[in-house]
Amino acid sequence: MIGPGGTIGIIGGGQLGRMLALAAAPLGLKAHIFDPHERPCAADVAAAFTRAAFDDVAALERFAAACDVVTYEFENLPVAPLATIAHKLRPGPESLRIAQDRAAEKAFVEDAGGHPAAWRQVDNPDDLAAAIDALGLPLVLKTRRDGYDGKGQAWVRDPADGPEALAALGHRPLVAEQAIAFDAEFSVVLARGADGDVAFFDSPRNVHEDGILRRSLLPAGPAIDSHVPEARRQAAAIAERLGHIGVLTVEFFACADGPLVNEIAPRVHNSGHWTIEGARTSQFEQHVRAICGWPLGSPDRTADTIELENLIGDEIERWPMLAAEAGAHLHVYDKGDARPGRKMGHVTRLR
Amino acid sequence: MIGPGGTIGIIGGGQLGRMLALAAAPLGLKAHIFDPHERPCAADVAAAFTRAAFDDVAALERFAAACDVVTYEFENLPVAPLATIAHKLRPGPESLRIAQDRAAEKAFVEDAGGHPAAWRQVDNPDDLAAAIDALGLPLVLKTRRDGYDGKGQAWVRDPADGPEALAALGHRPLVAEQAIAFDAEFSVVLARGADGDVAFFDSPRNVHEDGILRRSLLPAGPAIDSHVPEARRQAAAIAERLGHIGVLTVEFFACADGPLVNEIAPRVHNSGHWTIEGARTSQFEQHVRAICGWPLGSPDRTADTIELENLIGDEIERWPMLAAEAGAHLHVYDKGDARPGRKMGHVTRLR
Ligand SMILES: Nc1ncnc2c1ncn2[C@@H]1O[C@H](COP(=O)(O)OP(=O)(O)OP(=O)(O)O)[C@@H](O)[C@H]1O
Ligand SMILES: Nc1ncnc2c1ncn2[C@@H]1O[C@H](COP(=O)(O)OP(=O)(O)OP(=O)(O)O)[C@@H](O)[C@H]1O
Repeated sequence: MIGPGGTIGIIGGGQLGRMLALAAAPLGLKAHIFDPHERPCAADVAAAFTRAAFDDVAALERFAAACDVVTYEFENLPVAPLATIAHKLRPGPESLRIAQDRAAEKAFVEDAGGHPAAWRQVDNPDDLAAAIDALGLPLVLKTRRDGYDGKGQAWVRDPADGPEALAALGHRPLVAEQAIAFDAEFSVVLARGADGDVAFFDSPRNVHEDGILRRSLLPAGPAIDSHVPEARRQAAAIAERLGHIGVLTVEFFACADGPLVNEIAPRVHNSGHWTIEGARTSQFEQHVRAICGWPLGSPDRTADTIELENLIGDEIERWPMLAAEAGAHLHVYDKGDARPGRKMGHVTRLR
Repeated sequence: MIGPGGTIGIIGGGQLGRMLALAAAPLGLKAHIFDPHERPCAADVAAAFTRAAFDDVAALERFAAACDVVTYEFENLPVAPLATIAHKLRPGPESLRIAQDRAAEKAFVEDAGGHPAAWRQVDNPDDLAAAIDALGLPLVLKTRRDGYDGKGQAWVRDPADGPEALAALGHRPLVAEQAIAFDAEFSVVLARGADGDVAFFDSPRNVHEDGILRRSLLPAGPAIDSHVPEARRQAAAIAERLGHIGVLTVEFFACADGPLVNEIAPRVHNSGHWTIEGARTSQFEQHVRAICGWPLGSPDRTADTIELENLIGDEIERWPMLAAEAGAHLHVYDKGDARPGRKMGHVTRLR
């Protein structure tokens, strides 16, 4: 067990790293942030900050030597440089490798007994034609790497859309996914401890707009709750097969014939932010506990009705009203520039 | 209102400063710690740290210039140097001046319509003889300044004890207090906003051992609850008269004929640590809200039964057991050396 006085390295200094650092502190653990930016928002609440590129092996080695364990707040990281510090890395490089490539991820999920939407790899126009034959239309093309918040996606509704869609995505390696007529979206956020113990948070209903998570709602309602046991089974099987240590998130579509895996994130997740006030142990503390070899905390909910609302772009300017709203817990990430589509904060309402 | 992106200066880098910084961060506010020590535990979660003596006026002025508001985590600070940054200081210098001198404090409390235990100023053996005449025996001598956790106190049970007690307290300026046969001890932790709005947290029963707070318990029970309305009246009158902005704590003895003020702290308080998990808004967030001119948050309790237990000295070594205890929220201050009598952490149990 990594005890009080120990140091957790966090690769990536955005809001997830910030909230991880804030959760580590009450346990007596110091945070050390690794990020290429000048002043990432997580560095403001951390004991140390290394500014270096994610592929700077020498910097990573010095960083790992200064930390008792190293984790990451996002998965779009080069795997090879991180392999040099694999002995300190939790979750391990395999979780990273799988989660950062949609094709590898879907194949892995299937192998683990999970069910993604029907899909095909698409590297060229011929592959796309074959995908249209196999999956039907409409379908959605997604870049295998570097997608987030709905970026790197294009819908194909007609075979004639193909060339434009491939061009829009820069002719990069893609996957094609069948269009899913889902009833709702939800996520399973679980933690797997160093001892293999697994704890699940309640699954919220996730509402997306323009590919970005807008709200997560609890209770999720019967249309989702009926899928949760099977979704948990799939998520736990994925975590187990990855040998994952830490929080793992699996996003699902609730469909007529069962839950379909949308994607996995080997980390704390936006749809788990409600746990800061809404669960006995937050997803951030749970992740810290897992990677430090502590027993997991209770994931039990603390309120009957919980709503997480993201503050995107200039919505952050609503903060004075939210600060005055009874029962609203305001979270501002202090990231500076409120660009459109950028997640700047969130608010959690408990009732 | 000091909004997201703003900076709160915190004079003193101990656990109270640390928990203030941790509460400021979710509101998007940066913390800047001012402390003479090499590595105060609050600096590990702050955006900036100035190492300087508390009476270094030039350093204080630079610090204040870099902050939007300046607060303090303890009251044993030299007032004159701080007066130079009074325009940025919340609570103001008056709260500091009164709270750091037991004689000034008791006179002020009486003026405000509050009731301390009967007391006398004691500067020499004659004063002590007069105090014994007026207050009876036993009585307790306390240094006017710099007492905490029961340090700087001596009991006088017999007139013959006088010389030894005065010597033990280094012949410093003292107050003598009547010995109070109290039923229980409790505290009123309130916040007063920049607009004069006041919010009270529930009053816990405080259990001391060897002059150090050991536990705070909620509900406090009828022997205390019956005193709370009058205690709140006194505490609010004190806050009002001080023009206090921020959290103010008043410790009380519950006595047969009403609540008696023991002492006041112009700050967040150990007996309010339960509010981190046990109240909708913690005392730390409440203090940040007040000094930044935000509306106060809800002080409502989140659980029926709450116990705060301090981890003193080597009790911190119990952390692995506490980390595994269901329903226990562990807080480790990461202060390094676990000297006997030093507050190293706390645990909050909700039921
Ligand atoms: N196959 C599909 N069928 C229907 N809708 C889809 C499909 N794939 C994605 N979507 C919609 O687009 C949203 C974003 O897709 P996805 O989660 O793959 O994107 P992302 O950029 O990885 O987002 P995140 O920020 O969650 O990582 C989904 O939540 C869903 O609403
Ligand atoms: N007049 C009194 N009569 C009886 N007991 C007393 C009296 N004054 C203090 N005590 C006991 O000693 C404890 C510590 O006293 P006091 O609060 O004055 O000390 P302190 O060093 O200022 O402590 P703190 O850490 O709370 O600031 C009290 O909580 C109470 O239990």
